[in-house]
Amino acid sequence: MFSKEVYMTRRRVLLNKMAATAPEGKRGIALFVGNVEAAAQYKDNAYKFRQDSSWLYYFGLDEPRMAAVIDLDTGEETLYADDVDIDDIIWMGPQPSVASKAAEAGIYKSASYDSLTVAVTKALATGRNIHYLPPTRYYNTMRLASLTGVAVENVGKVAPIGEDGGRHASEELVKAVISMRLVKEPCEIEQLDDAGALGQEMHTVARNSIRLGIVEQEIVGEMEGVVLRKGWGVSFPTILTQRGETLHNHLHDKIVEPGKLMVIDAGAENNMHYASDFTRTYPTSGKFTSKQRDIYQIVADCNELAFSLTKPGIAYRDVHIATARLMLERLKDLDLVRGDVDAMVAEGIAGLFQPHGLGHNMGLDVHDMEDLGENLVGYDPDQKRARQLGLGSLRMARRLVPGNVITDEPGIYFIPALIAKWKSEGTGKDFVNYSKLESYHDFGGIRIEDDVLVTPDGARRTGPNRLPVQPDDIEDAMSS
Amino acid sequence: MFSKEVYMTRRRVLLNKMAATAPEGKRGIALFVGNVEAAAQYKDNAYKFRQDSSWLYYFGLDEPRMAAVIDLDTGEETLYADDVDIDDIIWMGPQPSVASKAAEAGIYKSASYDSLTVAVTKALATGRNIHYLPPTRYYNTMRLASLTGVAVENVGKVAPIGEDGGRHASEELVKAVISMRLVKEPCEIEQLDDAGALGQEMHTVARNSIRLGIVEQEIVGEMEGVVLRKGWGVSFPTILTQRGETLHNHLHDKIVEPGKLMVIDAGAENNMHYASDFTRTYPTSGKFTSKQRDIYQIVADCNELAFSLTKPGIAYRDVHIATARLMLERLKDLDLVRGDVDAMVAEGIAGLFQPHGLGHNMGLDVHDMEDLGENLVGYDPDQKRARQLGLGSLRMARRLVPGNVITDEPGIYFIPALIAKWKSEGTGKDFVNYSKLESYHDFGGIRIEDDVLVTPDGARRTGPNRLPVQPDDIEDAMSS
Repeated sequence: MFSKEVYMTRRRVLLNKMAATAPEGKRGIALFVGNVEAAAQYKDNAYKFRQDSSWLYYFGLDEPRMAAVIDLDTGEETLYADDVDIDDIIWMGPQPSVASKAAEAGIYKSASYDSLTVAVTKALATGRNIHYLPPTRYYNTMRLASLTGVAVENVGKVAPIGEDGGRHASEELVKAVISMRLVKEPCEIEQLDDAGALGQEMHTVARNSIRLGIVEQEIVGEMEGVVLRKGWGVSFPTILTQRGETLHNHLHDKIVEPGKLMVIDAGAENNMHYASDFTRTYPTSGKFTSKQRDIYQIVADCNELAFSLTKPGIAYRDVHIATARLMLERLKDLDLVRGDVDAMVAEGIAGLFQPHGLGHNMGLDVHDMEDLGENLVGYDPDQKRARQLGLGSLRMARRLVPGNVITDEPGIYFIPALIAKWKSEGTGKDFVNYSKLESYHDFGGIRIEDDVLVTPDGARRTGPNRLPVQPDDIEDAMSS
Repeated sequence: MFSKEVYMTRRRVLLNKMAATAPEGKRGIALFVGNVEAAAQYKDNAYKFRQDSSWLYYFGLDEPRMAAVIDLDTGEETLYADDVDIDDIIWMGPQPSVASKAAEAGIYKSASYDSLTVAVTKALATGRNIHYLPPTRYYNTMRLASLTGVAVENVGKVAPIGEDGGRHASEELVKAVISMRLVKEPCEIEQLDDAGALGQEMHTVARNSIRLGIVEQEIVGEMEGVVLRKGWGVSFPTILTQRGETLHNHLHDKIVEPGKLMVIDAGAENNMHYASDFTRTYPTSGKFTSKQRDIYQIVADCNELAFSLTKPGIAYRDVHIATARLMLERLKDLDLVRGDVDAMVAEGIAGLFQPHGLGHNMGLDVHDMEDLGENLVGYDPDQKRARQLGLGSLRMARRLVPGNVITDEPGIYFIPALIAKWKSEGTGKDFVNYSKLESYHDFGGIRIEDDVLVTPDGARRTGPNRLPVQPDDIEDAMSS
């Protein structure tokens, strides 16, 4: 973990932000619940432990079954966790005491995990507000319901704490946390570069492993082995597919065939739990066909355009729209769409080809803070989420500030089911050249993705060694 | 998955077993709930999907959000799952219909996932018994509670269905499932051998990766990469440690140092979700010291003795005790214990050195069916679980029958905290040479584990290539 000062400072800033939301004596408590182990097969055979990200951000302690309360009126902080007994020592080895773990996070009061119930019950009995974040895990949903008396189905709802007697997650706390986690500190940027390095190493190994005739899973195993050697694991389930038109294809059971496009969307989570998230698309035979190259170059140019526009002050929504415009101009050159580009942008025609957003925030979560609420995380208060396909899926629309870390991931896909739907509904009939699109039925999809840090005067990509992206460079890398 | 006949036959056998527990018309329904995705970071960033094992056994369908009802009175079977819509197709690709998935499992009636609520409500309203298995996952705990009206804290309790109006998991169903899953079918044994081959490949790569000065995690990454290339993943979190005296040490942050013993306890889960589970202990420098070799040979001989005793009819509890006896005899030769071996066996002195049991059942779960209840799974009705350290942790005590698959994993550990506890309490003071034990303070631990199939006339180890186990063979393998 970072030094205790990092966590103490973050909690002090949080306390100040929360202090602004209510008068002293009326603030209540902030209740944080870390994750417990998650069963894979049976209770004691758990998935690799992954701590809650907001817990990691404010407390750093990377162990299951911990909780904490910050008294927002007095500033008192208490860690709730259990000391080990002899059975635990036999199975898990000698462990530091809870008090010393608390001290590592700069907390000087600790109590048993179950005594959290007493603390929360007491706060409830005296009518204090209980601020908590919407839980990610089912266990925490049940635990928060049982602690606070909120119905299970309401535990995850976010609203201002005054409403409904505070019997839901706290919008004040959610907003305060988002405002902090959106702007990465220098120590976090170091970690994101480290996760970037790991992710780039994964992708390099994957690219070098592509061979006709092997099963996709063999490449996945090679690349995931790389991250497990040095990091926590993959930052999300690896997408590696010759059917890139399926956006989140997690099956890896196909033989690598000649002439296909292989989309590899994968990233690393390092041991401090920071993420990277890169996508590259490779011609399985090592050379692009000219048809593939035409589409590929559009996506590469959109990726570059987005990067060149990224700087403080611009709304990422506008960067998305700029790439959509470029994409449509270039698809028009190929006669796949026709007509006025401005009209096509307004109609959301780009969504037929790229039904997802340009990018998302990234940090401790690969879609940073997604469970705190996509709109609260990704949209400024004056921004409304669009309903168009594509733009409507944009997870990060905000005006950029230095310290934001976002992905830049345009893509073009030819999705037969979606094309058939639009065609049959008449959607885009004034613009889309449906007859020419038929020859792209088996094309697949292309996506290119980098991770980008917004700097005071522009942007830089995270990770030390940007993966080849231009088609010639891709072909060179695959032949070497 | 296997052919549909496999699943149809299993369900028919289950139906017959359940028919024997109640008269026709009074049997009720058996309700099976598959797993949903489990969030790692946030809801949509899930751990690799792992289906519930009993679901896999009876239905084979390896996808989230499925449930099934078997009417135990009429034999009617219904699969509950949802067909995909256009959004799903964009993100996940075209999918077979629920009806065709049901047909793959030999089920000819299907309905939407949510209509399960209607089916269960109707069964409850007409006073029918609801038989279900105790859930593994928190989500299924909540879902079963909400479906059946059983309190969350009672959902996992197992008792005969008549008691308490059936408002808990069904002991009848649990026992019927255990009786079937305990005896592996030929098609399962093939899969266990396949998982064994993968696990043996993992261990071979790990052994070849041991080098002084590297971080343990690098070896873990190498070996886990192997299984990800061909299988689902590790069958449990890998134990790889130079502090083998900590039985389940999941940290891999230590530098490989000379003169240590490295315990590697790891296994593979293949794509059909069958497990392997092997342990080997290596001298980090490539050669055992004579002190290490003395203890190592005892463990190797206990492992061999257990295998030689394993055959139909013997209780695995007695095999455990036989290895404990051999261990004590040989520790007596080293003057680590003194006195009458029979008395030491009776007093459970072996538990100081091996505080765990000799082995467990293995199949679709690495500790097979652990969540159905350790005692129901591992003990015959006339066997009582011991309370001694070691024997009390034995997960598989039953009289063996052909088709059982069990682990054979003796170990000797020198656990400073446990030795100090026994010494201060005076436990074993007539037998244990505590002063000599002091020189083993930094020894660590040794465990050796194979997976064993009980055959009609004895036993055989699963996996095609048994890992080297004799100390000379270990040293040869490490030097080549």
